[in-house]
Amino acid sequence: MFVHRIGTDIVMKKVELRHAEELFRLMDRSRSRLRQWLPFLDITKSIEDTRNFLKYSMDQNAANNGCQVGIWYKGEFAGIIGQHTINWSNRSTSIGYWLGDGFEGKGIMTKACYAMLEYSFLDLELERVEIRVATGNLKSKVIPERLAFVQEGCIRHAEWLYDHYVDHFVYGLLRDEFLHMTKKS
Amino acid sequence: MFVHRIGTDIVMKKVELRHAEELFRLMDRSRSRLRQWLPFLDITKSIEDTRNFLKYSMDQNAANNGCQVGIWYKGEFAGIIGQHTINWSNRSTSIGYWLGDGFEGKGIMTKACYAMLEYSFLDLELERVEIRVATGNLKSKVIPERLAFVQEGCIRHAEWLYDHYVDHFVYGLLRDEFLHMTKKS
Amino acid sequence: MFVHRIGTDIVMKKVELRHAEELFRLMDRSRSRLRQWLPFLDITKSIEDTRNFLKYSMDQNAANNGCQVGIWYKGEFAGIIGQHTINWSNRSTSIGYWLGDGFEGKGIMTKACYAMLEYSFLDLELERVEIRVATGNLKSKVIPERLAFVQEGCIRHAEWLYDHYVDHFVYGLLRDEFLHMTKKS
Amino acid sequence: MFVHRIGTDIVMKKVELRHAEELFRLMDRSRSRLRQWLPFLDITKSIEDTRNFLKYSMDQNAANNGCQVGIWYKGEFAGIIGQHTINWSNRSTSIGYWLGDGFEGKGIMTKACYAMLEYSFLDLELERVEIRVATGNLKSKVIPERLAFVQEGCIRHAEWLYDHYVDHFVYGLLRDEFLHMTKKS
Amino acid sequence: MFVHRIGTDIVMKKVELRHAEELFRLMDRSRSRLRQWLPFLDITKSIEDTRNFLKYSMDQNAANNGCQVGIWYKGEFAGIIGQHTINWSNRSTSIGYWLGDGFEGKGIMTKACYAMLEYSFLDLELERVEIRVATGNLKSKVIPERLAFVQEGCIRHAEWLYDHYVDHFVYGLLRDEFLHMTKKS
Amino acid sequence: MFVHRIGTDIVMKKVELRHAEELFRLMDRSRSRLRQWLPFLDITKSIEDTRNFLKYSMDQNAANNGCQVGIWYKGEFAGIIGQHTINWSNRSTSIGYWLGDGFEGKGIMTKACYAMLEYSFLDLELERVEIRVATGNLKSKVIPERLAFVQEGCIRHAEWLYDHYVDHFVYGLLRDEFLHMTKKS
Repeated sequence: MFVHRIGTDIVMKKVELRHAEELFRLMDRSRSRLRQWLPFLDITKSIEDTRNFLKYSMDQNAANNGCQVGIWYKGEFAGIIGQHTINWSNRSTSIGYWLGDGFEGKGIMTKACYAMLEYSFLDLELERVEIRVATGNLKSKVIPERLAFVQEGCIRHAEWLYDHYVDHFVYGLLRDEFLHMTKKS
Repeated sequence: MFVHRIGTDIVMKKVELRHAEELFRLMDRSRSRLRQWLPFLDITKSIEDTRNFLKYSMDQNAANNGCQVGIWYKGEFAGIIGQHTINWSNRSTSIGYWLGDGFEGKGIMTKACYAMLEYSFLDLELERVEIRVATGNLKSKVIPERLAFVQEGCIRHAEWLYDHYVDHFVYGLLRDEFLHMTKKS
Repeated sequence: MFVHRIGTDIVMKKVELRHAEELFRLMDRSRSRLRQWLPFLDITKSIEDTRNFLKYSMDQNAANNGCQVGIWYKGEFAGIIGQHTINWSNRSTSIGYWLGDGFEGKGIMTKACYAMLEYSFLDLELERVEIRVATGNLKSKVIPERLAFVQEGCIRHAEWLYDHYVDHFVYGLLRDEFLHMTKKS
Repeated sequence: MFVHRIGTDIVMKKVELRHAEELFRLMDRSRSRLRQWLPFLDITKSIEDTRNFLKYSMDQNAANNGCQVGIWYKGEFAGIIGQHTINWSNRSTSIGYWLGDGFEGKGIMTKACYAMLEYSFLDLELERVEIRVATGNLKSKVIPERLAFVQEGCIRHAEWLYDHYVDHFVYGLLRDEFLHMTKKS
Repeated sequence: MFVHRIGTDIVMKKVELRHAEELFRLMDRSRSRLRQWLPFLDITKSIEDTRNFLKYSMDQNAANNGCQVGIWYKGEFAGIIGQHTINWSNRSTSIGYWLGDGFEGKGIMTKACYAMLEYSFLDLELERVEIRVATGNLKSKVIPERLAFVQEGCIRHAEWLYDHYVDHFVYGLLRDEFLHMTKKS
Repeated sequence: MFVHRIGTDIVMKKVELRHAEELFRLMDRSRSRLRQWLPFLDITKSIEDTRNFLKYSMDQNAANNGCQVGIWYKGEFAGIIGQHTINWSNRSTSIGYWLGDGFEGKGIMTKACYAMLEYSFLDLELERVEIRVATGNLKSKVIPERLAFVQEGCIRHAEWLYDHYVDHFVYGLLRDEFLHMTKKS
């Protein structure tokens, strides 16, 4: 209940405490692949850590500060897409996402990300959505590029990744660009 | 997005801060009828009071302690149904609801309440849902009676209503009773 | 100091942190009998748990939300009677109580409960006091029945008790009924 | 209920929110006399200020950090005696007190203060009770002197009183001194 | 005390509550010029607003999350330079600054900003300092350009300024670049 | 940066989280000497305890309630001098201090304490600074005596020290006395 469906296979739902088990299991078995670009895998050691993330997400949502959305594919928990925060003064947000092992290469995230843009631009009426990707993370860059984001710059040494700094491409999409895109399609 | 649809006319969605204006307008114009049984109408004087209710509701939801759900009918805000709290030790909740002027007599609340039972028994896996109705509130009693709740007692002087105490009928529905009901239908 | 005396043997006092040791000792040695109907015995494993209960009780009292009262019999800690919460809008409370091993069958609790009614109806000027008892808890039912409470209903599956749900009788006493009772006596 | 009686005329009770009206009325009509040495009279302008003081007092008590005790004389609210704070590491507290207009010269405060010493030394098992008095406040100095406190020093410019600094005499009483005093009497 | 001096004329000090008056006076008389690029001037209407900013700044500092530094020129309050936040995982911060009327064109801010870089890179051992400037704010752009920051991109519609969105240039300086710069000078 | 220098050897700086390691190391190796008069040595068992002290100190400073200042001697962490709290109504504070092993007998603390008086009387414009010393702590008494504090009394059983109570001398210095002292020097 209170879900967003895309076609027959994909269901998106704001995460709640009761999703802890399926979320942790997915992270746990996708750990070795995901940790390459997502350092929070290493601090998610037990289901208790996942519960803390979910509590944090529910508080974030209650504070009107963005939400974390679970993605189910054919009934299985497949990944997460979320807003990091919402800047209401400037009406902007940035988005992050990941898919667990076995759910890649099916076009799930492009659709989920498009839904998140609908939510951000149409439901929340934001002006700008940003995606930041480490310059070497080729698979992740595909998403903003497919969705017509503009690459606006490269933030040097933006993130400490285990043992070195990585640079981040900044991609931005504006409300008018999105509305134009939806009209065409 | 993140809604529950019933047929083509009814949409249910957990309330958020951005619903303040339509919620307050509905309460404001339904004030004289609703206040007969709902004393909180009188302390909802401005949209700021509605915003505080919505903040409280979002916090309640984040605390995993129940949710307040808006009901839209043909695109218009029609009313609210919500869980007062969730007792997770005993897996029980109680439900309250109201419809604004012009939305009564269309069967909206019976359907919305049934959806809330699905959410409570199936999504949240609760054991018991309770509805309390002032003994004189004939229109409100119809809902639990239609949905096969059992009347379990009458709590005397349960509520101070402006200038006198009223008694409350307690209606209860158990998980097995609900599952049995859904199988038959 | 700041106590309520009943005859020469019974002293009642709002509990404070410094009662932790005698309270824990009593609970600990009455554990096997009390846990039949009181599941919180099992989560009271050490004096630290009792301290947390006492801190909570002191906060509850400071929030004007009811109080937990220790009962001493001939100088020994004998049990607890407390208000679960106070609903000031409707001026009602509900009461719970227990006696440790060796203090039953002496009429202590009937007197302590009567004192709690005096406190609730006369000092706090409440309108309604409620007592809920599991239908099978015959010894506990005696108290509201002796004190002329009215049985107002039976809440089904009200409480999860270790491995099954139990139903609760609801007993209520109104302010006028209490005042009438005190006049007669 | 939960009171301390001294003879037939004096009743002492930890203050609660419901005492706001009688406390404020007493302060209000004793204002011109009391404000000479008690600057908080001037910031107690309405009953709301008194309610805030009472809330603060209940929180102080819940934090195990001392209590404020109301004194009733022949059924009328007469004054306050309270502990400013409790230092549990060193087991010490300090005491302040005042009586409203019409209640002075009857020996009420000496008795109330003695009761507060019993509470501090016997119930709470403290080691030291301190009273500080502005050097010019002759009436207030009488209390510690009557109760055999030792004058231990004079703190210069201890307090800003409207338009100048005043010095404070420090009086101290130790546990053994109190126990010895009670034995003799 | 606890200040940083640059030559004989400039003193920098973390702001505290007691600076409220001189800070507010400076903002108040520089209002019309500063508000062109700094929308917070319009919500700084009274000294109370400035006090709230200072409380916030002291809390920010206590949370190890950056600091706001006052700049005095020849004994007069001249402006503010501060860190917006510190990201300790990635060891980065961003910096903002302004000078009041009459203090521009003297090279004060370039020196103050250089001191802030020393504090960020040497005291706090951060890896990256960022400055964001609205593309049309020519005077402000001079600072990072003089201090050898690299322009890394242009964030479109980054900020809502009264009635339209403005784009932000992002300037970044890395620890090694700063150390190299200090060696040369 | 943001330091106070005395001559070429002494640097004073408000403590921050990043000083945890050098502070803990100093306390740890000075433990056996310092604990004679400072019972908090025994509850400072690991660097985590020192971090909590530093967090507390930063919060104290942010609350405008006094500060803890580190003393470095020839580049090495030598000790701490701090205000216990600030009473802004009466504009008074009290001061405590200690030096680690190897830093005594060099006149460091007298200078640091004088600086703290400058900060208290000149920067903060306080009226009164107090120092309390256990009567047997001969080395510590030297500081207020050298700085012309007046001994104002002796508080009996002021502090529980491991296994017995100790008395405290109270020393006070007033603003005018300090200003007079600085004029002469």
